[in-house]
Amino acid sequence: MKKIGVVLAGCGVRDGSEIHEAVLTLLAIDRNGAKAVCFAPDIELNEVNHVKMEETGAKRNVLVESARIARGEISDVAKASAAELDALVIPGGFGAAKNLCNFAMQGPNGSVNPEVLRLVREMAKARKPICAICIAPTLLALALGKDLAPQLTIGNDQGTAEAINATGSKHVDCPVSEFVVDKENLIVTTPAYMLAGHIAEAADGIEKAVRATIDLIK
Amino acid sequence: MKKIGVVLAGCGVRDGSEIHEAVLTLLAIDRNGAKAVCFAPDIELNEVNHVKMEETGAKRNVLVESARIARGEISDVAKASAAELDALVIPGGFGAAKNLCNFAMQGPNGSVNPEVLRLVREMAKARKPICAICIAPTLLALALGKDLAPQLTIGNDQGTAEAINATGSKHVDCPVSEFVVDKENLIVTTPAYMLAGHIAEAADGIEKAVRATIDLIK
Repeated sequence: MKKIGVVLAGCGVRDGSEIHEAVLTLLAIDRNGAKAVCFAPDIELNEVNHVKMEETGAKRNVLVESARIARGEISDVAKASAAELDALVIPGGFGAAKNLCNFAMQGPNGSVNPEVLRLVREMAKARKPICAICIAPTLLALALGKDLAPQLTIGNDQGTAEAINATGSKHVDCPVSEFVVDKENLIVTTPAYMLAGHIAEAADGIEKAVRATIDLIK
Repeated sequence: MKKIGVVLAGCGVRDGSEIHEAVLTLLAIDRNGAKAVCFAPDIELNEVNHVKMEETGAKRNVLVESARIARGEISDVAKASAAELDALVIPGGFGAAKNLCNFAMQGPNGSVNPEVLRLVREMAKARKPICAICIAPTLLALALGKDLAPQLTIGNDQGTAEAINATGSKHVDCPVSEFVVDKENLIVTTPAYMLAGHIAEAADGIEKAVRATIDLIK
């Protein structure tokens, strides 16, 4: 059974992984006959109250909150190795751009969490597929832009697209229920809630993108 | 467009709503052309660390945590009215049995959160369908068992089944990917993670149960 790493960033669209995208990713992996293996970094996040949509000033732990989505079956991303995985998926949510990297604050000059960066680069070097959803392609832009100039989509937001291009990556506009494949670099991206108005739209793109990612496994 | 109330109990299998079940419910509602309207009670829960799977001693707010699953679009269940809804769905997770009612602690002698109880009884009185997933049928047993003797399933756990029967309800064993319909009382139940070994199993039953619930709307 193929093992697909899923890197989570917390639990909630504004301070962690977008929950719908993460669950739809796990469902798509399972329905394609593969096994999801969840990881998250053991670092702090800035808690956001999701009723008021504002930071509370309190901290939570990214690994501990991500465990809610993974029903407890999750490991520190520092223990993840590309050698043990067939592909990698990174769902979106602000956490992908605030916790796994700092694109949300630093844009194209940002950096990626060291362990997430190591894992992404190991996967790329091993020629194993990587899928990134919603805003998570910005992490791939920071991690791989300079070396691989990957084709990526976050939908059609022009400011974000320009920031992605400034990393050396190449942004491609894409509708919500579709996805972009960089066949050269084995990278699959889909806009999901960067464009989705309701959950079924996000699901359509994620289902297609995850299946395409699994199909790319050698 | 039909409006389906979804009552959440927090965000995480051990101290709130089971996240997969809640998201799969929202997806099934959307894919059946209806609109989900999320509610949760504005009360405290006992936080569980989902890596260690033990209580931390800290409190969180059920409505605020549920808002993570609802992407902020959620209201206090005290504001919910059966007159404005066509059907109601209650996903599972320990929160359904610890926060929305106290079946987890009190069994058949337990009670239901007053506002959730009011809403469930309003729906039943108005002859509008109610769907309960996983352990959430125990809440319906407490709310409706004595008056309506509903047929319910939580899968095949005999201890829980006996406790459900002790409320005046009638438990029916059911496999994970199926569901039980009480046509007399317009109540639909499915075992989901009471039995599911992986997410696709839970999804199969939830998709069928939500569709059956929507089909029962007059």
